[in-house]
Order: sequence, then C-alpha cells, then structure tokens
Amino acid sequence: MNYISLSKNDLNKEKDKMLKKYEELKKLNLKLNMARGKPSPEQVNLSRAALDAVNSKTNFITKDGSDCLNYGVLDGLLELKEIFTPVLGVNKEQIFVGGNSSLSMMFDVISFFMTSGVCGSEPWIKQGQIKFLCPCPGYDRHFAILKHFNIKAIPIIMTNTGPDMDTIERLVTNDKSIKGIWCVPKYSNPQGITYSDETVKRFARLKPAAKDFRIFWDNAYAIHDLTETPEKLLNIMTECEKNNSKDLPIIFCSTSKITFPGAGVAFLGASENNIKEIKKMYSVKTIGFDKINQLRHARYFKKYEGLINHMNKHRAILKPKFDIVVNTLKNEFVENKIISFTEPKGGYFVSVDVMDGCAKRVVDLCKKVGLVLTEAGATFPNGIDNNDSNIRIAPSYPSVEELKTAMSVFCVCVKLAVLEKILEN
Amino acid sequence: MNYISLSKNDLNKEKDKMLKKYEELKKLNLKLNMARGKPSPEQVNLSRAALDAVNSKTNFITKDGSDCLNYGVLDGLLELKEIFTPVLGVNKEQIFVGGNSSLSMMFDVISFFMTSGVCGSEPWIKQGQIKFLCPCPGYDRHFAILKHFNIKAIPIIMTNTGPDMDTIERLVTNDKSIKGIWCVPKYSNPQGITYSDETVKRFARLKPAAKDFRIFWDNAYAIHDLTETPEKLLNIMTECEKNNSKDLPIIFCSTSKITFPGAGVAFLGASENNIKEIKKMYSVKTIGFDKINQLRHARYFKKYEGLINHMNKHRAILKPKFDIVVNTLKNEFVENKIISFTEPKGGYFVSVDVMDGCAKRVVDLCKKVGLVLTEAGATFPNGIDNNDSNIRIAPSYPSVEELKTAMSVFCVCVKLAVLEKILEN
Repeated sequence: MNYISLSKNDLNKEKDKMLKKYEELKKLNLKLNMARGKPSPEQVNLSRAALDAVNSKTNFITKDGSDCLNYGVLDGLLELKEIFTPVLGVNKEQIFVGGNSSLSMMFDVISFFMTSGVCGSEPWIKQGQIKFLCPCPGYDRHFAILKHFNIKAIPIIMTNTGPDMDTIERLVTNDKSIKGIWCVPKYSNPQGITYSDETVKRFARLKPAAKDFRIFWDNAYAIHDLTETPEKLLNIMTECEKNNSKDLPIIFCSTSKITFPGAGVAFLGASENNIKEIKKMYSVKTIGFDKINQLRHARYFKKYEGLINHMNKHRAILKPKFDIVVNTLKNEFVENKIISFTEPKGGYFVSVDVMDGCAKRVVDLCKKVGLVLTEAGATFPNGIDNNDSNIRIAPSYPSVEELKTAMSVFCVCVKLAVLEKILEN
Repeated sequence: MNYISLSKNDLNKEKDKMLKKYEELKKLNLKLNMARGKPSPEQVNLSRAALDAVNSKTNFITKDGSDCLNYGVLDGLLELKEIFTPVLGVNKEQIFVGGNSSLSMMFDVISFFMTSGVCGSEPWIKQGQIKFLCPCPGYDRHFAILKHFNIKAIPIIMTNTGPDMDTIERLVTNDKSIKGIWCVPKYSNPQGITYSDETVKRFARLKPAAKDFRIFWDNAYAIHDLTETPEKLLNIMTECEKNNSKDLPIIFCSTSKITFPGAGVAFLGASENNIKEIKKMYSVKTIGFDKINQLRHARYFKKYEGLINHMNKHRAILKPKFDIVVNTLKNEFVENKIISFTEPKGGYFVSVDVMDGCAKRVVDLCKKVGLVLTEAGATFPNGIDNNDSNIRIAPSYPSVEELKTAMSVFCVCVKLAVLEKILEN
C-alpha cells in the first residue's frame, strides 16, 4: 500500500487499523531492549572457554620473558600484538595494547591532545574553539566525547562509499581549527557502510591545514562480518605510507564484541611518532594495563586464524537476526515508500530512515509498548537529527523470537507515526 | 666507628678498606633490582587461587542481577564495594570501582578537573598557574602527574606525625591557586609514616581559599601492615562529615599489592557530590570497567575478613625482609652517624637519609655493581632533592638471600660515598 497516494479517507482507515494493532501490542506487556549494540548471552557464551585459558596453574611468563603477574610492559604483550596485527593493519611496533575499552583509549588520546598537544603542537585546549568532523549518522559516544571537551562537531554527510570526501578535503585543507575526524570505516555505525578504496586513498592524501590534525579511525567492526564474502577495507596505514602521511591515522579496535563486552582488550595502532607520544603520556597515567587478561586472550586465540574461527561462530548467531530485521522491513514496507534502510554485510546495526519528522514519534511509540530503541537523534552530534528521520536498530541482543516480536512492533509504530504525520499536514 | 671524628689518615684507611670491598662486589656480577615497590613472585603466588574464583562454568550474575559478561554497571559491583567499604572508610554509595590501576584513576580525576573543573568550577587549566602541595619525600608517580599537567609542585616537609600542617593550613587558606595535595596517609611512601589523629583532624578542618581544592588521599597501604598491631589511621571521611567538609577528600586504593600488580582492581571513595561528578565524567570515557575481574576478586575474598586473612600471608613474607633491611642498617651504622632511616610498621619502603650530598653517589655506586635502587631525588618533585640525601629502599621484590647481599652492597656504597664526601671537604 502506497501511503503517499492514498485518499484522506483511506489514510484514516489505515490509521484506525494500526491504532487497533497498537492497542493489542500494549496488552503484551513487552520488555524488549534494542538500544545498544550489545552481544547476546549466546554470543558471549562462545567465549566462556577463554576464561579457562589461564588459571592458577598457568605459566604467566610471556614469550619475551615478561611476567604477567607483576608490574610492567606498558604497551602490552607481544603475543597479542602478533595476533591482532592483521586486524589493525599495522606492524607490531605500531601497536599499543590497552585495557578493556577502546572508547576509553579514544577519550584518553583526545584528553592528552587537549592538555598536552599533538607531537609538540600547542595543546588543543589553548587553541580556542577547535572542531571535529563527524560523518553522520554516526556513533553517539564519539559525539559525547566532543561535547565533554567542548569541541565543535561539524556534521558530514555519509554516502554509500563513505563520508563526503569533497567537503572533508575542502574543510580540512582550509581550516586550521579542524583537528580531527571520527571514522568507523568498516560496517559503519549505524549504516554498515564500508569506505571505498577511493575514500581511504583520499583520507591518506589529506593535506590538513592543522599539523595537529588526526584521523580517529575506529575500526570497531574490522572482523565482524555477516557474510562469507567480507567487504574489504583498504589498509589506511599502507596508503598513508605511500603519501608520507603516516602520522594522520590513529586506529582503534577492541575485543568487546569478540570476547567479553567491557572485559576484553583494546588496541591502538599508529605511526611510530604517534605511538611514542601516546606511550609517553600513558607512562604518566599508569604502570601498565591488565596483562593477565591480555595473556588470557592470547592463549585462547593462539593466532589470527583462531580469532577468525571465533568470529565465524558470532556470524552464525548474528546473521539470522539481521535477516529478520531486513526481511521484515522489506515485507512490511514493500510499496508504501515511507522508509529506507541499509542491508549491512557486517557490524552491529541496521540504519533506518523514516519519513522526515517521524523518528522521535516512532521511538516514543515503541517505548510506550515496551520496546526500547536507541533515542532518535542519537546518531547525530548533540542528539540533533535535523530531519528527525534516522533510527538505529540493534538486532544483536534479543533472541530470535523476541526480535520477531520487536520488529512487528517497530513496523506498526512506523506506520502509525507516518500516518499521523501525513494526516496532520 | 664514628666517621665524623676520625682523622684524615684514618678516614683514608677506611676508604681504602671500603674500596677493596667494593672491588670484590664488582666481581660478583650482581643483578639486583630494588627500584620499585614490587611484590615478590612468592607474594603474587598467594593470589593464584583467585584466578580460579571464576571460570567458564561460573554464574556471572551479581547479587543485584547484573551480568558481568556484558556491558554496564559503570561504578562497579556491589559485592566488591561491600568488601572494600572498611578499607576506604566510606559507605558503599561513596565508592566507585574502577579498572586495574588507582594511579590511572588519580590521573583521570586530575585530567577531568583540568579540562572540566571541579563540581562546577572553572576548569583548572583555565585558571593560570595552579599548584599542588607535595609532602616530601613522597611518591614519584604523583609528582610525575603534576609535571605532565604543568601543575606547580610545592614541597611540604614531612614530620613523624604527617606533613607539616602549619604550613599547609597557611598556604591553603591564603592561596586560591593551590588546588590539591597528595597524601599517602598510612605507611607513607617512602617513610612509612602514618598520619596522626590530629593531622587527619586538621585536614578535615581545612578551609581552602579555593573552592575547587581537593585532598588526594592515596591510601595505597591501608591494610598493608607489617605487625600484628597495625597503626590506625583516623577515618578522614568521618572527620570531614563532622566539619561539613565532605567534598574535600578523594580517597584511592587498589589491590595491586593485595592480589596482582597491574591486574587487580582500583577503588575511589568520595562524597556523593564528588562521586556524581566523577561518574558523569567516566560515563563519557567508558561504558564500564572490567566486571569479570571485579567478580573474580569479590568471589575470592568473599568478605572483608577474607581480605585481611590474605594480607596476613603477605605480612609473613614481607616482615623478614623489612627486618633484614632495618637490622642491617642498625648493625652497620651503629656508631658512625652518617645515616638515619625509618622503621616502618607497614607499607613497601624504608626511607634512608644519608649525609647531605651523598645520595646520588650512593645510588650510582650501587648501580655500577649491579644493584639498581630508586633514582636519588625521585622522592621529590621534579626529581630534585635539594639535600641530595634521601634514598628509597624497596625490600619486597628480592629473595631473602638476594636482599642480604643487596644490603651489604648498599652499606659499602653508603660508607664509600660518605668517606669520599668527608675527604673532599
């Protein structure tokens, strides 16, 4: 049914139908949460065996002779660096292994740069109003860091090959107050877009007006594929080496969506210059990160192939859930043209765009019948989606049955909100 | 032998004797390290059983229903808060459980205050040159944080009841640019001094000119007693409550010297106001800390008594080592009055003061025969000990046999350095 071409009468009839369905949903007393990209218990259980990878009988001496049961080794275990070298796409001298949170490392790096500058530059906080570019829709926690440090967020439009590079090149080349850009280059949050080769090449060729400009390359979903033919992200460090711009990218990833959400290991990859600077700063902040957990991960995965095998098991759990989301949307909105959505081949989200001015209402309607979604607007800096159109769907946490219910609820709420909107005009 | 009253001839004879001993030490090709307060492998092994406290079969749901295998619970597990309530001396609503490093939390808090201010104050970094008071000798990593943030360190003399409170009161009451003070209130680093009740009461009664002044109460050795009759530190939070100054102290501790150095759990205790502020800031930085490790600790200790039993085992290992250090110094320097030293009843260090102008030389002489000590000067801000007198001895890491050797080396080097000094004048 194509809502746009319906008569007012038919629209009202359809609305009544949806209202009736909505009232029925209320009676179900649902309690479903799809707000965050949270692995399901089933996924987390895949990694339980990792908890036995070290125990009281373990030899905690690493291959280079460090004792994981005592202080030391600021930048992390060699064996873990070796396993994650292909994930980060840098060599092991360019890796810093951190604690349980890559978000925390992003925050730390920005905080360091705010108070101490970047490789000798004036501290960002002393340079007046500085700015970051924010491909949108994007990750709300990235934007929250900017807000915390009073860094102005400049939204950049996303295309299906990555962020709008024309605008980025123009802004970065001309404005010294632009100090960084947030990128989730593979299976982007929330759209699941992988940057094209040309996009990555253009990032590597950037000639920023600010010498202390950095690309925050949050490769959160580097190996989080939903198909057997993963999308391939060009290696940014290799491209930067060709362009003599190795200091531009700072790469992040973690095992939060590989092993344990909030109890995994985070990684940072960067040029030798950047690593040196970041190590210097971390050496003031801590004696070192949790090497027992690092060893636990290294002994469990053993090598890169172990990691990939493990990810295949995640895929087997996640793929049917993404299928439910995408297929439900396809079936329910086949003709009425009031919605567009992505069909990601990896990552943790499906991005939905409903008719302008309806996103908040949809999220609100869902909430009232017990389905919590990511707040509308969350995917934009300061929580403001000017079109009030984007909704992020996180299919990972609910069970298959719950997800089916959730998607029915979602579709009813979208239809109802859109009908209200059309009728109000 | 009293060096001070010897003739030049006898001094030269004694020096030749020491030089001969020193040459013999060289031949031993020693490789001993007493630079840091590092638990010995024997101590760390006491906690190996904790590594079995959780495994793949564990029920990871906490007593309040949180799942330690997934995201959430920013401020840490209730069961762990309950165990550590008596250690921090605050109630469980006043505890924030962090990651593996209390140093890191101190850094974070100062960093937060630098960029965002303290409970609504202007950010420290925007207030011009700010200052911290530093009881000396003190902990080098505290001072390093100040240097990193370009905060001016003002040395405060330590007495055997704690830092010189007259000076502290005068400075804090009159100078708005003084924003904090570093305290290790029990078994202080390096002297092992426990602040007297009167000192704690005076801290609680402080009326700082700066509303954004905070006491950084690093209670690193809260339960690290070397005797069966522990020194008692007055509860600062209780005292502050009496004086309506609850927002003054921020209390830190960790299990790095209880379970695993660098892989334990860190804690912060503070007033509800401060906790609210700190939680707000951490909520931007991370989704949460490692709850699996928190649960591991909670399940292992079970309750406060479990913790104390565990500390008794540490004491049994540490006490003989401290005895070796103190008894060797007593025996070797019975008459020559060129040294003074502390006899701590807890903590990780013995503080030695050698004749002025000799500390660097002693550390250097030791190094040349394979005994690495904490750098002379490290116990003072910017590494500058104006008297060049203080040396920190960390007896914990070496074995008893190694420690005996190390102390012989140390005594020879002290005597040699002092003889050189006397003869040069």
